[in-house]
Formats: sequence, C-alpha cells, structure tokens
Amino acid sequence: MVQGLSADSSSYSFTPLVVLELASDTKQEATAWLLSRIRDRQQNGGAELLVEQLGPGAGAQEKENPNMFLVGATWQRLLTGAEDVGLFKEFNDGSMRGFTCANKHNFKDFKGYGDSFLSMAECQYIIKHELDTLRAKDETHVPGHTQAKLYPGKSIIRRLQSKGILIQVFPLHDKEELKRLSFSWYKKVKFSFQPLDDIRHYYGEGQALYFGFLEYFTFALVPMALIGVPYYLFDWEDYDKYVVFAVFNLVWCTVILELWKRCSTSLAYIWGTLSRKKAFEEPRPGFHGVLGFNPVTGREEPLYPNTKRQLRIYLVSLPFVLLCIYLSLYVMMIYFLMEGWALSVHDEEPTFWTGILLFIPSVIYAVVIEIMNLVYRYVAEFLTEWENHRLESSYQNHLVLKVLVFNFFNCFASLFYIAFVMQDMVLLRQSLATLLITSQILNQVMEAFLPYWLQRRRNKKMMRNVQKRRAVEDVELALAEQVRLEADMSMYLGTFDDYLELFLLFGYVSLFSCVYPLAAVLVVLNNITEVYSDAFKMCHVFKRPFSDPAANIGVWQLAFEAMSVIAVVTNCSLIGMSSQVKAYFPDSELQLILWTVAIEHGLLAFKFILTFLIPDVPKHIQINLARLEFESLEALKKKDKKEWTL
Amino acid sequence: MVQGLSADSSSYSFTPLVVLELASDTKQEATAWLLSRIRDRQQNGGAELLVEQLGPGAGAQEKENPNMFLVGATWQRLLTGAEDVGLFKEFNDGSMRGFTCANKHNFKDFKGYGDSFLSMAECQYIIKHELDTLRAKDETHVPGHTQAKLYPGKSIIRRLQSKGILIQVFPLHDKEELKRLSFSWYKKVKFSFQPLDDIRHYYGEGQALYFGFLEYFTFALVPMALIGVPYYLFDWEDYDKYVVFAVFNLVWCTVILELWKRCSTSLAYIWGTLSRKKAFEEPRPGFHGVLGFNPVTGREEPLYPNTKRQLRIYLVSLPFVLLCIYLSLYVMMIYFLMEGWALSVHDEEPTFWTGILLFIPSVIYAVVIEIMNLVYRYVAEFLTEWENHRLESSYQNHLVLKVLVFNFFNCFASLFYIAFVMQDMVLLRQSLATLLITSQILNQVMEAFLPYWLQRRRNKKMMRNVQKRRAVEDVELALAEQVRLEADMSMYLGTFDDYLELFLLFGYVSLFSCVYPLAAVLVVLNNITEVYSDAFKMCHVFKRPFSDPAANIGVWQLAFEAMSVIAVVTNCSLIGMSSQVKAYFPDSELQLILWTVAIEHGLLAFKFILTFLIPDVPKHIQINLARLEFESLEALKKKDKKEWTL
Repeated sequence: MVQGLSADSSSYSFTPLVVLELASDTKQEATAWLLSRIRDRQQNGGAELLVEQLGPGAGAQEKENPNMFLVGATWQRLLTGAEDVGLFKEFNDGSMRGFTCANKHNFKDFKGYGDSFLSMAECQYIIKHELDTLRAKDETHVPGHTQAKLYPGKSIIRRLQSKGILIQVFPLHDKEELKRLSFSWYKKVKFSFQPLDDIRHYYGEGQALYFGFLEYFTFALVPMALIGVPYYLFDWEDYDKYVVFAVFNLVWCTVILELWKRCSTSLAYIWGTLSRKKAFEEPRPGFHGVLGFNPVTGREEPLYPNTKRQLRIYLVSLPFVLLCIYLSLYVMMIYFLMEGWALSVHDEEPTFWTGILLFIPSVIYAVVIEIMNLVYRYVAEFLTEWENHRLESSYQNHLVLKVLVFNFFNCFASLFYIAFVMQDMVLLRQSLATLLITSQILNQVMEAFLPYWLQRRRNKKMMRNVQKRRAVEDVELALAEQVRLEADMSMYLGTFDDYLELFLLFGYVSLFSCVYPLAAVLVVLNNITEVYSDAFKMCHVFKRPFSDPAANIGVWQLAFEAMSVIAVVTNCSLIGMSSQVKAYFPDSELQLILWTVAIEHGLLAFKFILTFLIPDVPKHIQINLARLEFESLEALKKKDKKEWTL
Repeated sequence: MVQGLSADSSSYSFTPLVVLELASDTKQEATAWLLSRIRDRQQNGGAELLVEQLGPGAGAQEKENPNMFLVGATWQRLLTGAEDVGLFKEFNDGSMRGFTCANKHNFKDFKGYGDSFLSMAECQYIIKHELDTLRAKDETHVPGHTQAKLYPGKSIIRRLQSKGILIQVFPLHDKEELKRLSFSWYKKVKFSFQPLDDIRHYYGEGQALYFGFLEYFTFALVPMALIGVPYYLFDWEDYDKYVVFAVFNLVWCTVILELWKRCSTSLAYIWGTLSRKKAFEEPRPGFHGVLGFNPVTGREEPLYPNTKRQLRIYLVSLPFVLLCIYLSLYVMMIYFLMEGWALSVHDEEPTFWTGILLFIPSVIYAVVIEIMNLVYRYVAEFLTEWENHRLESSYQNHLVLKVLVFNFFNCFASLFYIAFVMQDMVLLRQSLATLLITSQILNQVMEAFLPYWLQRRRNKKMMRNVQKRRAVEDVELALAEQVRLEADMSMYLGTFDDYLELFLLFGYVSLFSCVYPLAAVLVVLNNITEVYSDAFKMCHVFKRPFSDPAANIGVWQLAFEAMSVIAVVTNCSLIGMSSQVKAYFPDSELQLILWTVAIEHGLLAFKFILTFLIPDVPKHIQINLARLEFESLEALKKKDKKEWTL
C-alpha cells in the first residue's frame, strides 16, 4: 500500500496546499510511480514536493474515492519554486523585482523561515507549476496503464489528466483566511471599496483584476446614471437633451476604457505581474499531433501544422459561426412574425385568452435564445478544441471570439431590428428595459443562488452522514472532511462568463443609451449586487481556483473597445433618425443624413485620437520601469566589461 | 600648437572615419582640452579614440578653417564600442545576437584583427556614439569659453554643438566603396532590385529601409497601375467598373501596408536592428531646463516639467496649426473665386489676354502654396523646438505630425473641395493630374538637380583653385581636399522629406483612385526616377549621413495607414455620388446614401479585421525570436541556480 509512504513523510512540518485526485481504478504501480516522481529530488528530475495520502473520511462509504493525495512543500522548495515561476516581489527600495533566492534578503517582507513572504495562493501556484513541469524521463508509458503513452520531456500531470487517470488538481481553501476575507468583502453592508489586495492575496491576480474591473466599471457608470435619472423622472423627451446625453456617453465610454488601462497597469505593477516575463508556454493538455521537435525549445513534443489549423478555422469554424448567426437572425424574424400575428388576433377580437397569447411569442423567444446560447457554447468549445490550438491562451482567445460574436447577435439583434428597421423608439425602450431587467435577474439566479442551493443540499446530506456515524469532533478528520467537501464543490471555470455578462451589460448601456438613459442606473444597481453574489460564489460555491498571474484583462479590453466603437455608430444613427433632429432639416433628409454621417466620422476620429493621447501606463510607473531597465542594462554592461578585461 | 599632437599619433595605423569641425575662433585651450578628453583612456573618463588635425588643403586661403580634426579608433576600441552600442551580428548558428567581446569568436564573420567584420558605417556610428557619450567630469565650463557651462555627466559634444563651438561632425565617404555602390545602384539601367544590403552597409539601416520602402511601394503599385491603364486607354467611364477598381484599390492598400510591416520586420531582423535594445535615450542638444536629477538614471541633467510642455502644445501649437489650416483653406477659397472671375471675364469677351488670364490664378495659387509650405515648415520647426522636447524621437514625432497635417490640407483641400462641394468630376480629374505631374517635376528638380548643380559649381571652383596652385597629385593632399570638399557639401537632413513626398503621392493614388485610375501609373513612373535621383543625391550631393539603426519606418507607417482609412471614406463617397450608381436608386437618394454609408462601414471594419489577421512578424522570425528568448531564460535560470547552490 502507498499508505506506508505517507507515514515517514509526516515527520516534515506538512501544510497541505493542493489536492490530487486520481481515478479510483488507478493501478497501484501507477500511484506509487507518480508519488515517487513527485517526491524525488530535483537533480533526479523529480518535483521534490511533499505528498501524503488522505485518510478515509467520516462518511467512509464504498462511494468514497481512496485515491486522494495532499501535496505540500518545504519552505526552501517554495522559495526555489518562486524563482522558477518568476514571481515579482517588492524590493527593499520599493520597486518590484523578480525574486531570486540568492538575493532573498533584499526583498522587503522576507524575514526568514516560514514567514508570510509567500501568500498561500502563491505557494499553491508554485506547486501547480512544479507539478505541471514534472516531465517524463525514459518511461514509455504510465506504469500499469499502457494506453497512457509517455515520451521524454512530456508533462506527466498533463498526460494523466488527458487520459482521465488524474481526475482533478485543486488548491485547498484556508478556512480562517476565507472567513476573514468574506467578512471584509461582502458580509457587511458598506460603502468602501472591495479589499482588492486581500482578494489578490487569496485568489490571485486574475480574480482580483476581474473584481477590480467590476468595481471600476460600476463607479465609472455612476456619472452616467446620475445624469440619466432626471431624464426618467422629468420625462425629458427632447432630443436636443438626448443628444447632449449621447455625446457625453460616447466620450465617457472612451475615456473610462482608456483610464481602465492605466488602472489595470497600476494594479498589475503593484502586484508584480506587469513586468513579469512569461515563461515559455507549454502545449495545453488536449493538444495532439505527430511527435517532433519544437523549433523553439528543441524538445520533443507533438507538432501540428499551422496551415491545417487555419484551414479548420476558416473552412469550418467561420462558416459555422456565420450559419449560427444566420439562424439566430432567422429565429428573431420568426419571433417578430409571431408577435405580429398575435397582435392581429388580439386586435381582431380581444378576449382574456388573446391577451395571454400576446405574451407567448416573447416567452418562446426568450427560451429559444437561452437554448441557442447553451447549445452554441458547447459547439463552440468543441470546435475550438477540434481546431487543436497548441497554447491555452490561443484556445481561450478563439473561444472568446466565437462566443462573443454570437452572443452579441443573439442579444442585440432584436434591438437593432426594432431600432433601425421598425424605427419604433417606444418599443425599443420597452424591449431594452425588459431584456436588461430579465437578463439581470436570470443571471443572478443562475450564477449564484442555484449553485449555492445545490451545494447546500449536498453539504447537508454529507453532514448528516457525518453526524450519524461519528459524534466526536476530530482535527484529523476535519481536514479529511474539508478536502472531500471541497472536492465535491463545482469547479470554477474562470472569469469568462463574468466578463461576458459585463460585456453584454456594457452593450445595453452604450449601444442605445440615447433612448433609454435609465440603463446606466439599472446596470449600476446590478453591478452592486453582482459584487456581492460573485464574492459569495467565489467563497462558498466553488472550489478555490488556482491563481492566475494576469497583468491585464486581456482580450476583453479589446471587446469592450469594439463595443464602444459600435456604440458611436448606433447612437449617431438613432439621433439622426429622431423626429426632433429631423425638424432642423425640414427641406432635405439628405442634408440630415450627410450631417449625421459627418458627425459620426468626427466622433470616431476623436475616439481614436483620444486613445492615442491618453498614455496606457501612468507616468510614475513608466519612470519606475525605465529605471529598472536602465539599471539592468548598466549592470550588464559593467559585468560584461569586467569579464572581458579579466 | 595642437599640430604637434598629431605627429606622435600618426604611429598608429590610422584610418580617418569621422570629421570634427570646430569654429575657427575656438580658443586654443578649448581645442587642446577637447582633444585630450577624446584621446584619454576610458578608465579616466575619456573616449580613447584617435584624433588628428587635418593639414592645410591645397587652396589654403585665409577663408579655410584650420580647426578640422579627423577621428578614428583602434580595432580593439571599435569592438568594445560595438558592444557599447549594442550592435547585433550574425552568430555562428545563423541567429542574430548582441555582439560581446567575450564571445567575439563565435560570431560568423569574425576572423581576427582588422577584418571587415564591422562595416565602415558601423565604425562611424560607434565613434559618433562614443563622442556623444563623452561626459564632463568636474569641469564647470569649456576651457576658454566661460559661457559654455558644463556639469558632471553632461555630454561635451552636445554642449559644444549647442554653443556653436563645434560646427559639425560628419562621417567621411569611402571613395572606392561609393564608386562600387553607385555603379550597382543607379549607374546601370537594370530591372533588378536595388542593392539594399550594400546600401545598408554604406548608409545604415534607416536609409536602407527608406529605399526598401520606396522599392516595395513601387512594386506594390504595379498591379494598380496595370489595372488602371485599360481604364485610360479605352476610356472606361462606367462606374460599375470604377467600383471594382476602387474596391480592389482599398483592399490592396490595406494589404500592402500590412505586408510592408512583415517585409520591414524581415529586413530589420536580418540587419540585426529588430531585437536590438535601445540604449537609454539622452536629452537632445537643444533641450534646456532647470538642473535636477533624472528620475530614471539618477544623473544630473536639465529637467523641464511635462505639464508646461503640454500647455505649450495644446495652448499654442495646436491653435497655431488650426489657424494655418484655416488660412490655407481661405487661400484656396480665394483661388476658386479668382478662377471663377477669370473664367467669367474670358467667357464675356474671349481674347488672347483673357486666355492667359485663365492661367494666372492657378499659377498664383501654386506659388502661394509653395510659399506657405516653406514658411509653415520653418514655424513648425521653431514651435517644436520651443515645445522643448527632451528626446530627439519625441521632437521628430511632433514635427512630423505638424507638417503632415498641414501638408495634407494644403495639397488635398482643393481636390476635396472640387470633389465634394463642386462635385465636378472632370475638373477633379484635371486638377489631380495637374497637381500630380507638376509636383513630381518640381520635386525632382528641387531635390536632386538643383543641389547637384550648385554643388558642381562649387566643386569646379575649388578644383580650379587646386590646379592653379599645385599641379602635382599628392595622396596626403587628396585626403585634405576630400575632407574639405565634403565639409562644404550640404547636410542631408534625414529621410523626412523623402517620406513626406511618398506620403503625398500615396494620397494622390489612394484618395481619388476611382476617378483617375492613371494616378498609379504616374506614381510608379515617378518612383522609378525617384530611386535614381535619390540614390544620386545620396552619393554625390550630400554629406554622408551617420547611420541610424532603425527597425522600422516609425511614425510613417501610422501616417500611411491613416491615409488609407481616409481613402476608404473618400472613395465610397465618390462612388455614391456618381450618376451611374445613382441610377440604381432612381426613387430615393436616401436609400443610396444609406447603402453607401453601410458599405463604407463594412469596408472600414474589414480593414481593421485584416490588420489584425495578418501577423506583423513572419512565422520563421517569430520562432527565431522565441528561441533566443527561451535560450536566454534557460541560461539565466541555470546560472542563478548555480550561483545559489554554491
């Protein structure tokens, strides 16, 4: 049994950080081999980590998987790992520098053995990195599993994962810290900012940037919301007022997106992810191809020709996305036909039943949209997987692009149709309000309360089991219970859906802002509850995610900027179409359109100039970065000169 | 006398590379001090270069300046200098790496002492860099010139230049190589490409990139020219054909600009300027401010608050540019009024004199435009100087922007007026042809033949003097003559005007391409002569410029891309205005305009998507760069690990 091995390793001071769950039918020799590789010294190609098998839980039924392992590391190992992953930490002089063990005493918070220099999230990230880079030596396959082939240099964990032997790897929650974090984050009603540094400390930079963006976005919308309120209250229908509102809106959207870049740069600088050099990206687990030599690293790994991938993208994925968009538009047209028909039936002979009939098309349409979104999401994931991207980042970008474009059409097509084909501003305002409010409510329910409720039911059942069988509290057992509880929690799938939701909300606010100034108010209210529900779901519904050292919000910045460009076009057209503006050009509609187009082009040009004029990196960070660069160049020069004169 | 010093330094094998000319009224102690600082060893803060005074020329009149100095360096010094400036050279494995003396034998063409490893242009660039970084120690002013104040760390050469003590620094031509280069470049009629590598070898990367761009641009226009010819020959006036032509044109412009980025990256990679790290940029000579400490380097240097500069830019320069544009438009309107008046006079009572009167407005307008361009250029330079930019690059960018915007309006405003206000396509075609052809002829004359003619007259005079006084040929004397001849040549002011000319030509081709398809043909013809005249002027009219290790064409790429965006707008409007297209929408002009605007937006979106889709760096260079990055990261890791385990 492997159990024996964990006995001698318990002499270390062992803090479990990460859980490995192997399939319950894993062969014993495979488990033993994996553990020995993880424990082996680095010189021998091991990961030099501590690993222990988890004891049986309280509810030790047959269903329980015995193959759960806790991974930890010594303090020294974590420090060398921090250097491996290229962690940036605050230096004595206040600048952010890449951590090196040789230089460790010059870092600000480094005090010695076992202090809080590395946060738990960082330690877990380091362990994940070390596990991921644990490479096969001369094994041809995983012992006991001949179908899981290996070759020198292949990441073992990734192969085990792709073959289904390794079910999951996840970091453990820290109950104490979590309690403290959730208290300061969402358990008290307050008007202060979110504890971003604590969030980053616990969940890593990617999460913290999302919550930072959510908060920033909310505050940035407040001026728009404040201006929008009087329009609603006093029923200002004059379009000259709306024009002012829309122009302010457009400029404001551009400015806040540009300023966010500066904010995110500042945050990433303080958190040390800004100048962090990305390590060479390994192929993602699902990537397959003919074995060959990577031209960059010279290592053996699967290769897949780029042209083949391009062909798959342009000949299959692109037509598929276009087809889906066409379908979505087709469904929309059917909806409008149905609604017209229901309206005509109702008008002809209005009864109670025809009154109900009026609602049926919208209900069907809403359901169909949700179903289409779900189906499309699965197919998009399948297609992107099938495109066989080598890098996780490239996979993500292609997936985001596919989902984004389709969601844009699916959510906004009907609004565009109402606005520009039917030209019915009252209906547009109604639809916008309905869509915005229902999508907000649906989201909150689907996203946080439903998973929470499911989770709670599961927990209660388990707790009942525990209490039935053992009445006594036991620290050892508590850990085992915690691990098994967390292993059962849903997996947090990254910030994708959260950003997508914000993106669509941003669309509702910006695209048709001049007909519905109240949208900003609704979105601000939504965002405030969103902070609470997202925080709650991060703390109590999902497994803790591994931290992700992001330096910015990536492709989403681009998506939001694209939306703000489209918003210029829609708002200008809406203003041009309004009867109040038409009144200024009684003689010729031609003149009106030409003016509208000219102003739109002017606004677009102004947007681009603004984008250039506002520097992405705040001055003081530019100076700090330049100083580091300068110092390293000078040091290099000096060193080279010394070497050469010797 | 300083003359004595040159005697003992002649024992070195001395190849003069760079000429320093001091004002003839420079104090002797200043000259002696400067020479000793240049000759002093690097440990003592000197430049460790060789320097000799130039002997009196053949035409040793009183007018001749005796304070001419030849600067050279030992082979060893040039190698350490190559490392200082961060030169990239081809490594043994074919990749480009930063040259280091410690590693010199691993570079491909390095053979030993005095070989052709470094080109003459590179040596001259190194000497310029070493001279520029020669810094004051504890001198408070230049000896003998109390008004030329110095402080520790101030570049001596820059201070001497800004105080007018140093008149000029220029690299010498290499007569042999120049003859070879000019023969292969323009002296034979050929259909082969330009010898870009030789140009780069002789003039450096900045020049070579300009000629590379000129050649690329010419070849890229050939398809447009070929398609344009039948339109002219067969008088195809159908707008459906023009639509095809214009759409092809728009897509083509985007594609060639994107592909040029790839080309320029390839060239810069081969030439080793792509991954070269820019050394910290020193303040430009004219920069002034209160003495303080640079936050990046910690060195003492003048500081000038950024807000003050921004105020100058937005409160003075921007209004001034707008005013100039307004003036230019005003002058244009006067021109149109005058032309209308002349036409009416001619129509009333046509005589020979009224026929001549018809030409007078255009002549006056052309002259006024030229004068305005000249005056504006001087004021723009003055204003940009007054804005007090710290960096040469930022100075250049602001100057380019100012000149570009004004030139755009000055050259194209009348065409825009004819096209969109007068809507007279025949006149537009005529004006376009006239402007294009006259500007081409004027340019060629002003740019190459006039300076050449002046130069030739000067040379002949000097030669006559020489032959009058000494009949014998003398090698020593030949050098002195060469230096003095070159010192009298005009200074080459950089590629600014050349790029500006190409930019305007690009505007003529792309902005109104659908009314005048022959423009591309004319521009291709012009570019072919331009190659010859530019090559000629580089070789024979101007002083040799210092090489400039550019990695791309910089701000001009942006300018060309902006022009291609404007071209989409103008072409779409022209097509929408054409009577043939109007015929498709007989009922409503509204529909027509909406379609035009929609198509224009579609084309713009397509342009941006294309820009994203075409990667800026070719795949094989991406791989090479990634490999270098990966290797350096691995090496760093290994080194750090070794240091730490020791």
